Amino acid sequence: MISSMGKPYVVGIDIGGTNTVFGIVDARGTILCSGSVKTKAYDKVEDYVTAVCENLLPLIESEGGVEKIKGIGIGAPNGNYYSGTIEFAPNLPWKGVIHLAELFQEKLGIPTALTNDANAAAVGEMTYGAARGMKDFIMITLGTGVGSGIVVNGQVVYGHDGFAGELGHVIVRENGRMCGCGRKGCLETYCSATGVARTAREFLIARSDESLLRHIPAEEIASKDVYEAAVQGDKLAQEIFEFTGELLGEALANFVAFSSPEAIVLFGGLAKSGDYIMNPVKKGLDSNVLNIYKGKTKLLVSELKDSDAAVLGASALGWELKDLKE
Amino acid sequence: MISSMGKPYVVGIDIGGTNTVFGIVDARGTILCSGSVKTKAYDKVEDYVTAVCENLLPLIESEGGVEKIKGIGIGAPNGNYYSGTIEFAPNLPWKGVIHLAELFQEKLGIPTALTNDANAAAVGEMTYGAARGMKDFIMITLGTGVGSGIVVNGQVVYGHDGFAGELGHVIVRENGRMCGCGRKGCLETYCSATGVARTAREFLIARSDESLLRHIPAEEIASKDVYEAAVQGDKLAQEIFEFTGELLGEALANFVAFSSPEAIVLFGGLAKSGDYIMNPVKKGLDSNVLNIYKGKTKLLVSELKDSDAAVLGASALGWELKDLKE
Repeated sequence: MISSMGKPYVVGIDIGGTNTVFGIVDARGTILCSGSVKTKAYDKVEDYVTAVCENLLPLIESEGGVEKIKGIGIGAPNGNYYSGTIEFAPNLPWKGVIHLAELFQEKLGIPTALTNDANAAAVGEMTYGAARGMKDFIMITLGTGVGSGIVVNGQVVYGHDGFAGELGHVIVRENGRMCGCGRKGCLETYCSATGVARTAREFLIARSDESLLRHIPAEEIASKDVYEAAVQGDKLAQEIFEFTGELLGEALANFVAFSSPEAIVLFGGLAKSGDYIMNPVKKGLDSNVLNIYKGKTKLLVSELKDSDAAVLGASALGWELKDLKE
Repeated sequence: MISSMGKPYVVGIDIGGTNTVFGIVDARGTILCSGSVKTKAYDKVEDYVTAVCENLLPLIESEGGVEKIKGIGIGAPNGNYYSGTIEFAPNLPWKGVIHLAELFQEKLGIPTALTNDANAAAVGEMTYGAARGMKDFIMITLGTGVGSGIVVNGQVVYGHDGFAGELGHVIVRENGRMCGCGRKGCLETYCSATGVARTAREFLIARSDESLLRHIPAEEIASKDVYEAAVQGDKLAQEIFEFTGELLGEALANFVAFSSPEAIVLFGGLAKSGDYIMNPVKKGLDSNVLNIYKGKTKLLVSELKDSDAAVLGASALGWELKDLKE
């Protein structure tokens, strides 16, 4: 499927609020070598690009030089695929609209594309992971927030403005929990890691039954604590997962009515909580999905290693790029 | 945009439970001539196809013969684009899976495609109507039920099985109104013509203020009566539209988070109720849509004449077909 045209590698750059990680990746999704810089250390984006390139170029040289690289893919918060820009990203040091893909492309002479983290994850899953060979699927990333990447006819859905696929901000409960986006009842307020912690605090106040979670100060409870308690047989913790999973499944049932995907791929810490989360998700999906879709959509967990996924996802964009002189 | 390759016309066939209407259409969306047969009169699908062809062929001959026709498009309930089949349509006389596109193609020697009514409407709007030149939009058909056709990157979203785009069955109210699909709270139970009538009956029972609608027996109230009362200044009728429109707008806000369309095109009787419905839809959309999408998505009313839209929509599929010998 991947035609390397004598250029066997791509570069993936994952930009986070704290760190930027990059690596050289081959067609099988092996990260041959990687490096990182501190995103926050550079107030000016030009200095940042220079720093990344200074660290990246020796890696590229070690794998045979620039002529071996088919393209560079960048995953970044608020990334716009059409323009290759980062637009008003609240957690990055550079304000306004940043033409980041262009800056890298000019500096290195390698075609460069950019998109947001969740879209990059979807392309990564389609290229190297659980969605290989699929043309229609939805990627849901369950982290601090909830992100999504939607693939239709083998292409990421970017929408008319480049910002499609914000399924974490679909409103799932009328007048529900307050969301960081300023609205109420977004999926993200329930089914992210922070949403799970929020549910834990609510359950602990509303109920009086014993729980291992009562030994942790309420404000410090994290999604991980709930998982560990659930594994130890804690009933309340298990019910937190049931609540979270069923609500997610219910939302997924509505997403299925949109694009009827072959699979929904879940990614992130929560998705690794095994049956505790996946059984209720399946239950929520099956009991809410329209009859004609019943039993047709596979529920999968990402096959990419957590630590590699961001760089792999970004890198996968690189395979789709044309040579600059074409 | 439309390349006719010496074949200047297409045929559109719209299959309804009662009537089948067909016509010859040119590249500007003019219906040159048309005809119809009674769908219900034919227990065997082969007899039905024969009857349609016997009525259609003279029309084709009058416009220069089969060699002038680029393709045939069919809009049908439960139509599957991939297989060209109608599958288990409850309101048609033929049971199971019917290979209808194939039957027409063999009979007439003209390439034939088939999809459901709402997808056909979307292609029609993109080819001849309000969505000309758009690559990303959502068509919502407000009739007895609520249907949808979603276009992404210039292509209808069919999903992995051909059945994507059932936005009328997105659940908008937890434990809401009972739907014909067996589930509760579907958009269709509120925002279809029957949904409006249902809201009218609910409002009339729950409230005691005077209304023109009280002069009509409750079971006989139709969406049209509500519109007429609203036009005459009836407060209760106007509030029924506000309720319906705001709920639709709220649902549209979630759809925008999926595919970030350039426009949402509303079609059907309800969409023709002007400001009574469009103002509340806009209000519901604006007050529920995520910040990054705010003010970006146009809210449009279909530009196709009601009486022509079904045939035009179906016909538009015909332009995308390749010659059988290619």
